[in-house]
Amino acid sequence: MRIAIDVMGGDHAPAEILNGAFAAARANADRQIILVGQEEVIKNRLIEMKELGDEVPANISAVFAEDVMDMDESVTSLLKKKKTSIWIATQLVKTGEADAIVSAGSTGAQMACAMLLLGRCKGVERPCIAIHVPGGGRLLLDTGANVECTPEMLEQFAHLGSVYMQVQEGIEKPKVALLSNGTEDHKGTPTVQAAHALLRASELNFVGNLEGRDLLRGDYNVMVSDGFSGNIALKSTEGAAMMIMDELKQGISASFSRKLGAMLIKPVLRGLKKSLDYKEHGGGPLLGCNGVSIVCHGSSDARAIENAIGLAERCVAGNFVAKVTEEMTKVAEAKAAREAAAAAEAAAAEEK
Amino acid sequence: MRIAIDVMGGDHAPAEILNGAFAAARANADRQIILVGQEEVIKNRLIEMKELGDEVPANISAVFAEDVMDMDESVTSLLKKKKTSIWIATQLVKTGEADAIVSAGSTGAQMACAMLLLGRCKGVERPCIAIHVPGGGRLLLDTGANVECTPEMLEQFAHLGSVYMQVQEGIEKPKVALLSNGTEDHKGTPTVQAAHALLRASELNFVGNLEGRDLLRGDYNVMVSDGFSGNIALKSTEGAAMMIMDELKQGISASFSRKLGAMLIKPVLRGLKKSLDYKEHGGGPLLGCNGVSIVCHGSSDARAIENAIGLAERCVAGNFVAKVTEEMTKVAEAKAAREAAAAAEAAAAEEK
Repeated sequence: MRIAIDVMGGDHAPAEILNGAFAAARANADRQIILVGQEEVIKNRLIEMKELGDEVPANISAVFAEDVMDMDESVTSLLKKKKTSIWIATQLVKTGEADAIVSAGSTGAQMACAMLLLGRCKGVERPCIAIHVPGGGRLLLDTGANVECTPEMLEQFAHLGSVYMQVQEGIEKPKVALLSNGTEDHKGTPTVQAAHALLRASELNFVGNLEGRDLLRGDYNVMVSDGFSGNIALKSTEGAAMMIMDELKQGISASFSRKLGAMLIKPVLRGLKKSLDYKEHGGGPLLGCNGVSIVCHGSSDARAIENAIGLAERCVAGNFVAKVTEEMTKVAEAKAAREAAAAAEAAAAEEK
Repeated sequence: MRIAIDVMGGDHAPAEILNGAFAAARANADRQIILVGQEEVIKNRLIEMKELGDEVPANISAVFAEDVMDMDESVTSLLKKKKTSIWIATQLVKTGEADAIVSAGSTGAQMACAMLLLGRCKGVERPCIAIHVPGGGRLLLDTGANVECTPEMLEQFAHLGSVYMQVQEGIEKPKVALLSNGTEDHKGTPTVQAAHALLRASELNFVGNLEGRDLLRGDYNVMVSDGFSGNIALKSTEGAAMMIMDELKQGISASFSRKLGAMLIKPVLRGLKKSLDYKEHGGGPLLGCNGVSIVCHGSSDARAIENAIGLAERCVAGNFVAKVTEEMTKVAEAKAAREAAAAAEAAAAEEK
């Protein structure tokens, strides 16, 4: 398996990205890690390693990219400078030189590269970012690629998420929910209401609307949302978890007896930390494009990058992209058949 | 102070609502609590109390209402049956027989009653629900009254929240933030982007966009959002907090040593629980209508209702409604003056 890593993208790039890439290479000699970034940055790291006596793993290679996409840069500037690390890394997937790409850089740029270079699956208007909710068995999408969505896009996300959970997690009939401001069927914006009707009429295992409070523990496998609200749900959950863990940590270290108490409940705290850890999967796949592109959190550290590389491998091994294409073709055909039947019925009714 | 309580609204109505109302009456003999609900329900409770030897506080009175609004009922049916507890309780505020109303029933019905009976403040298109974020000094609005908002409505919410925090919390120049999917100025839906520009041009102390993760600890006093995303942010935070506290509780009781450990860190856990407790304020005021109407969580228990009664009293005592009207009039005048100046400038430029 060959994974291209965008060395230049992320708040802690290039150091943490490189650390993660090296850790992943060392952990498994069968994977090929292709570092994509500025020549100077990569060479400096190799020199540094030599000086420290660190061996460079044999399964690491590099492809140089002159330019870097800044986090704030508009996606249109991507088209002007095509030698950015994200562009070149995605191109490696297009040409078949890599099986997947992992980046913690600008999500907009990564999405644009995926759409322009890899293309979209049949029946998909726009790819979306799917994030594994901590605890397992739950996926949230879209979490930020598309701030505005049509009801049809939300239906496509539902199909994408459903196939993903079938293929990657082995869940037979994933329960699909729609994120709304209440569980009642009529709740939500007009777009959410229309998406609700589409999902109800689909072949999906649609379980109805769920709320923000259901994200971590609700009875669902795929939570569908536009990228704006999905991002807010994800980050609000993260924010609350971070705040609580910080307050616990601070409070606990305030006295000897509390430190002792904390020691006694250490397994509980450790389990809790694990069950809230968004870094467990390292990132989320861009679903709906013809290739595996893993979007990582901007704040990714080495461990997140290493885990994202593992996720990329699982997506490639699961042959997920082919299965999505197959499923979306079926969905498109079923829809066309339904529409044709409805049209025929309408025509017959008119004749009478 | 006379507070009308909608006895029939809420998941735990009427029992918990009545418990909260009685507790509030007992806690302060100066307040007048007016129970509004079905005659049978209220009388049965009084009989029950007599049987148990519980004294009925002298500062409790009742107004009977034949009908009840169901949680799922459409707001249009409100107009058909005008003898619902929420309608009659709001009317008591309109006629001056009560100073404020508290309800844990259908938010849509409460909002409709407020708009129809109390009316809106000058310059306010739609009232919104403001919720105190746990920890103090932070307000989130709208949290569910308006699922779709225009940029102008979001600007009005910002003014409403800013005056509220000045009057009720004594914060001189409240920091106003806009909830978005990233802190960069260009982030968000077209509506959020347009609202960002309006807030930037306003006299408010606008500090820019904030994310879901900033809700509990961000550097702001007023977080502005449409009711859909605001609801999702609030409930996602609540959901994460509930999940963590539950896991802690479960894990801690699993063995003797862990129970001992938990005892040693009890102050930390208690502090944490308090700093995450949305029931501390019991509910949120409907801002922008000509009267004090406190919206409580559907799941409110007696303590939440008692706290909401306290919040209602503080809002009345702060004379908040008059101050909002004053402020919104000023905002409308300043806007009109700016528009007139711009028009004059444009006309002068054309003449040249």
